[in-house]
Amino acid sequence: MDNSRLSRQISFILELDRLKTILRQSLIGDGSRQENDAEHSWHVSVMALLLAEYAPPQADAWRAAQMLLFHDVVEIDAGDTFIHDDVGNASKAQREQAAADRLYALLPDDQRDHFRALWEEFEARDSATARFANSLDRLQPILNNVATQGRMWQKNRVTAPKLMGLVGRIAQGCPALGDYAHQLVEEAVRKGYLPAE
Amino acid sequence: MDNSRLSRQISFILELDRLKTILRQSLIGDGSRQENDAEHSWHVSVMALLLAEYAPPQADAWRAAQMLLFHDVVEIDAGDTFIHDDVGNASKAQREQAAADRLYALLPDDQRDHFRALWEEFEARDSATARFANSLDRLQPILNNVATQGRMWQKNRVTAPKLMGLVGRIAQGCPALGDYAHQLVEEAVRKGYLPAE
Repeated sequence: MDNSRLSRQISFILELDRLKTILRQSLIGDGSRQENDAEHSWHVSVMALLLAEYAPPQADAWRAAQMLLFHDVVEIDAGDTFIHDDVGNASKAQREQAAADRLYALLPDDQRDHFRALWEEFEARDSATARFANSLDRLQPILNNVATQGRMWQKNRVTAPKLMGLVGRIAQGCPALGDYAHQLVEEAVRKGYLPAE
Repeated sequence: MDNSRLSRQISFILELDRLKTILRQSLIGDGSRQENDAEHSWHVSVMALLLAEYAPPQADAWRAAQMLLFHDVVEIDAGDTFIHDDVGNASKAQREQAAADRLYALLPDDQRDHFRALWEEFEARDSATARFANSLDRLQPILNNVATQGRMWQKNRVTAPKLMGLVGRIAQGCPALGDYAHQLVEEAVRKGYLPAE
């Protein structure tokens, strides 16, 4: 066993622990607190396995699950950028590239290249697998917002037209889940969880 | 799209959210609070991918990662049973079987059978993949305890001989990580994080 190789892998594993402290703009299902990136990453990865049958034929759901396990790692340095925060999103790509440079360099070179490429593929959405993974990443907060009566939507002044833009992205990566998300948003408006405009 | 099938899958996904509220007898890496089952499941799944090269030849690390994503689902009903709690462990199997009966029945029958079998395999440790997954499930709390100066070990009166029993289990599923865990425990004793007896 190459101890220095294992030490680098363990350093990365310990660094990843910090994802448990990065809070998102969604509540957990019982509404008691904000969700963190580690538990969100777990939730979307299990969704990839449970909803694999809806993935388009060219998408590999298990590879999407792997992608989703790592998709928020850069937020250890760059923080969570709320999807409806236009100012934060202007600098997001640059902050996240710097974070990826530092974080993935903790790994041995072959793994650095492999896991960074997996994240770059997710971000670029230039494969069916990456688009499917992105669909799940966008569907999960809608599920949790509906479960918590849209409290974080109201707090962050999210409206139905804004959310329908995201639903379009879900449909791009997974038409069946796009239809389902569309129904969820209409239901949320009907129930008063989400302002119609 | 079969809406009733998707509805069942989404019900299970929403129920899984409750794993975020089940607390374990380990702290997160910065020592600020107890870790929950969802973020623990995420951490051990990424470990399966990052440490795949140490898996014995018969073990499938990717399948171990899938197993680990779901390995604690039964704790939604059965709660977390601390590995050093002898009383709790006497009733653990029965409580967890009842939990599995209820929880996996939320899924469509084919998925109920598939995901329950994956969990049963993990619990029974009767495959190289299940033993590898169990090794990671036992290594991760040791890493987090060392990172937090053994505070939860001291609180729960865990000693080095008790922990060495677990290290033996890690070695059974993954000799290389067993060696590493052995070194970690010795280091923890040397640093005063863990009582020698």
